[in-house]
Amino acid sequence: MTLTLDELASFLASAGMPCEIDGDKTVTISSVATLEDAGEGQLSFLSNPKYAKELQTTAASAVLVRPDVIVDRPLNLLRTPDPYAAVTAVMVKLHGYRRHPRWGLSSLAQISATAVIGENANIAPGVYIDDEVQIGKNATIYPGVYIARRCRIGDDVTLFPNVVIYDECVLGNRVTIHAGSVIGEDGLGYAPVGEKWIKIPQIGNVVLGDDVEIGANCTIDRATLGSTLIGSGTKFSNLVAIGHGTKIGEDCMFVAQVGVAGSVHVGRHVTMAGQAGIVGHIVIGDNVTIGAKAGVTNSVDAGATVLGQPAVPIQECKRQVAIMQKLPDLKNEIRRLRRELDRLKRDIDAKQQ
Amino acid sequence: MTLTLDELASFLASAGMPCEIDGDKTVTISSVATLEDAGEGQLSFLSNPKYAKELQTTAASAVLVRPDVIVDRPLNLLRTPDPYAAVTAVMVKLHGYRRHPRWGLSSLAQISATAVIGENANIAPGVYIDDEVQIGKNATIYPGVYIARRCRIGDDVTLFPNVVIYDECVLGNRVTIHAGSVIGEDGLGYAPVGEKWIKIPQIGNVVLGDDVEIGANCTIDRATLGSTLIGSGTKFSNLVAIGHGTKIGEDCMFVAQVGVAGSVHVGRHVTMAGQAGIVGHIVIGDNVTIGAKAGVTNSVDAGATVLGQPAVPIQECKRQVAIMQKLPDLKNEIRRLRRELDRLKRDIDAKQQ
Amino acid sequence: MTLTLDELASFLASAGMPCEIDGDKTVTISSVATLEDAGEGQLSFLSNPKYAKELQTTAASAVLVRPDVIVDRPLNLLRTPDPYAAVTAVMVKLHGYRRHPRWGLSSLAQISATAVIGENANIAPGVYIDDEVQIGKNATIYPGVYIARRCRIGDDVTLFPNVVIYDECVLGNRVTIHAGSVIGEDGLGYAPVGEKWIKIPQIGNVVLGDDVEIGANCTIDRATLGSTLIGSGTKFSNLVAIGHGTKIGEDCMFVAQVGVAGSVHVGRHVTMAGQAGIVGHIVIGDNVTIGAKAGVTNSVDAGATVLGQPAVPIQECKRQVAIMQKLPDLKNEIRRLRRELDRLKRDIDAKQQ
Repeated sequence: MTLTLDELASFLASAGMPCEIDGDKTVTISSVATLEDAGEGQLSFLSNPKYAKELQTTAASAVLVRPDVIVDRPLNLLRTPDPYAAVTAVMVKLHGYRRHPRWGLSSLAQISATAVIGENANIAPGVYIDDEVQIGKNATIYPGVYIARRCRIGDDVTLFPNVVIYDECVLGNRVTIHAGSVIGEDGLGYAPVGEKWIKIPQIGNVVLGDDVEIGANCTIDRATLGSTLIGSGTKFSNLVAIGHGTKIGEDCMFVAQVGVAGSVHVGRHVTMAGQAGIVGHIVIGDNVTIGAKAGVTNSVDAGATVLGQPAVPIQECKRQVAIMQKLPDLKNEIRRLRRELDRLKRDIDAKQQ
Repeated sequence: MTLTLDELASFLASAGMPCEIDGDKTVTISSVATLEDAGEGQLSFLSNPKYAKELQTTAASAVLVRPDVIVDRPLNLLRTPDPYAAVTAVMVKLHGYRRHPRWGLSSLAQISATAVIGENANIAPGVYIDDEVQIGKNATIYPGVYIARRCRIGDDVTLFPNVVIYDECVLGNRVTIHAGSVIGEDGLGYAPVGEKWIKIPQIGNVVLGDDVEIGANCTIDRATLGSTLIGSGTKFSNLVAIGHGTKIGEDCMFVAQVGVAGSVHVGRHVTMAGQAGIVGHIVIGDNVTIGAKAGVTNSVDAGATVLGQPAVPIQECKRQVAIMQKLPDLKNEIRRLRRELDRLKRDIDAKQQ
Repeated sequence: MTLTLDELASFLASAGMPCEIDGDKTVTISSVATLEDAGEGQLSFLSNPKYAKELQTTAASAVLVRPDVIVDRPLNLLRTPDPYAAVTAVMVKLHGYRRHPRWGLSSLAQISATAVIGENANIAPGVYIDDEVQIGKNATIYPGVYIARRCRIGDDVTLFPNVVIYDECVLGNRVTIHAGSVIGEDGLGYAPVGEKWIKIPQIGNVVLGDDVEIGANCTIDRATLGSTLIGSGTKFSNLVAIGHGTKIGEDCMFVAQVGVAGSVHVGRHVTMAGQAGIVGHIVIGDNVTIGAKAGVTNSVDAGATVLGQPAVPIQECKRQVAIMQKLPDLKNEIRRLRRELDRLKRDIDAKQQ
């Protein structure tokens, strides 16, 4: 699709993002790129001021910027209060989302006679769907996906290659799971008998709400009893591990390599940054933010931001780090105090004699 | 299977877990659930006192509790010293373990003519078994599994979908590997030549002992020379990484996202909590416990519990954390000491003049 | 292949690694093993002095050692300045690298009619290659690999089982990707609208340079716009996560479970040890070394070595750790200072009255 700057401005206004054109309204835009990469026919944007100097060199045909940005060279600008939101809308408009291959119901997929597949399914060669699985409308299932028996899967679901869903798991509508992720494997459930570990049957499942998106190579344990839950609208990056029986609220955002142990309750709209880890059996309140690499060992109140290992409120963590850096100074001051005090005592003693 | 409470009590007694019925012996039980989820016909249990208040509201038909638990409402109880061990036994009795699909030797599996497959094998469509592989009796191999040449695999092994076993690896009896795990990939073996990295052939293998269970999306490097070993009875959770040439003892338990570098010797019955990391070429003694997120940089004596980054004995780590929290106080005290000492010196000077 | 010690010495000399034989020149060597494992007909080596005592017990037919090593038992030695480099060369000579199965172009692979596959391709059953993919000469592609449309793949590439390459990604020559790794999945790109997350189309790709080797179960996000880049000669271990739009230089070495967030610029010949994490939008200079488990929150200058969480230069990190261990002593000294100062003040007051 190709639009003039004028048409793009109208589109953005209609999407609730009014903007002002500063330059040639007739220039045509057919795609979006970064300031560094953009060329003829491409729209770029400046959101993070760190990249402002690239306005001097970009070859973009036009750039989305905030109203107050000053550019002292000829450059077509679209001024709007939130350039990032605007560029997102333009990307969806011009590029759309990924178009999947069309397989229909491939004759090279293994689909159980007892599975029920909704209309308009797009199921690739090399997919395996076991007995009594139910899948809603418009499913896109890539090669190498395995869906074990009695799973129930909603409408408009996309499963990328080599995703594995163990038996009896439930996926809501519009769930997307990226390649290689595993949903519903057994958790680490063993009873110790002497020094041996006796396996406890893991008879629960995993339930993913609507609009959940899971990154690549994640692992979500089934519950021992009951369900491991991932709330609607929650998004995971890659290599995330969720323990058995954990329940995660709606609209959370977990960055890569986050690990949450079993039986944790996570509220809604919680953000966990990369490589954060949460011990088992605690409660993380709504709207909590957990910093990168934080090791959370105690429950966290709603709205808090925690950081460090063990994780503490962010102000406390910053104070600890600041004081750590001053420790050599403190140590020297203690040494000076000792020296001065000893000298003073000696002086007083000397006078008294 | 459905049993009365009386029959369940007899079963538990016969399994070495005597218990006392407090309530209606004739109530029937057909499955197990958590206190929160349980309903009519279900047995639940109270092991962690944290959940005691749920005894007030559970709809379970009966609950396994310790002998001294007091419940002030009508509720059928089975009193036994270890309710968790008892519920595990009941789960195995009522539910059994996962029943696998029955494929026999699927005609859609690719099995080399030189592979030797034991009796009663259950090999799914889309499995690939290369030349000279040996597999024992009763194997269950799910779709998408790849077993490279000359692997030797014991009896009663279960490989979940998309597991990959590189050439010449050895799996003991009753090994279970969950979906997406990779056994025997090349480790990070390169010789530096200037700033380039020259690959060293990785000609060793991986050997998994009997009764090993590996979680989903783990990676176990083959040894450069010799074998990477995982001792019998050892259990891994998901996303665990083991480096080349590392040898891990029997009956260990590694939680999700643990990473052990190469050439490490880990003793028997070692527990590593989530996201722990172990540097290369060190020795971890028997019965060691390594805390969540610990960064272990030195060998650890048998029986020790270590924590922190760098990891230190747990008492020391706790002392460090406690003192960290007091640092602002200490800093203030140093400032007060300075002030008082300076004043004292001024006073003395003043008097001497 | 079998060679005498004399022939091996000639081979090493011709490879620029002259060595001196100390023992029987006619002994024959057909493979390489560790000191512990080696037996009749095997060459071993001593590089790390930690293992010197194994010279007393090894059953190797000959051992590569440094010129100054003293062995007081009969043992055939090859003395050379760099035994590790020498054993690497011998391993390549005797064992070569892994020989792959020969599939040719399997009739059980799904290859789009619009894909262009170079000569001498070796493509296994169960591979899926989508529309308009281009693959160079001598490709080896194992079962379960999925290559999405319009990917461009160079010569002499090896993709182990179940690797997934999303659409439009580019792989250079001699790239090797181990089992289960995913290249080009969508990154965590969402625009917040209230508490909901609106997906931003991820229209960039991933570009891997020549001679890149990626371990098992890694994940490399495609860029939102433009490319995520991995420079030529760079090597990753397993379970490494790279965020969207990150650019990594040539000849880097990343150990298992490293995580790099999005929009990071990493220079050339950078080493990241296991479980290190790098926040987004920073710059890591050339030849930087990042310690195991380091949490890097700020840009790092070329040539630096950083460690800790938050990461600081290694000297500073060591000083912090050392001082942490002395904190109990410092605390006691502060208490003593307080006591002595108070006593001194009381004494002075007493005398004044």
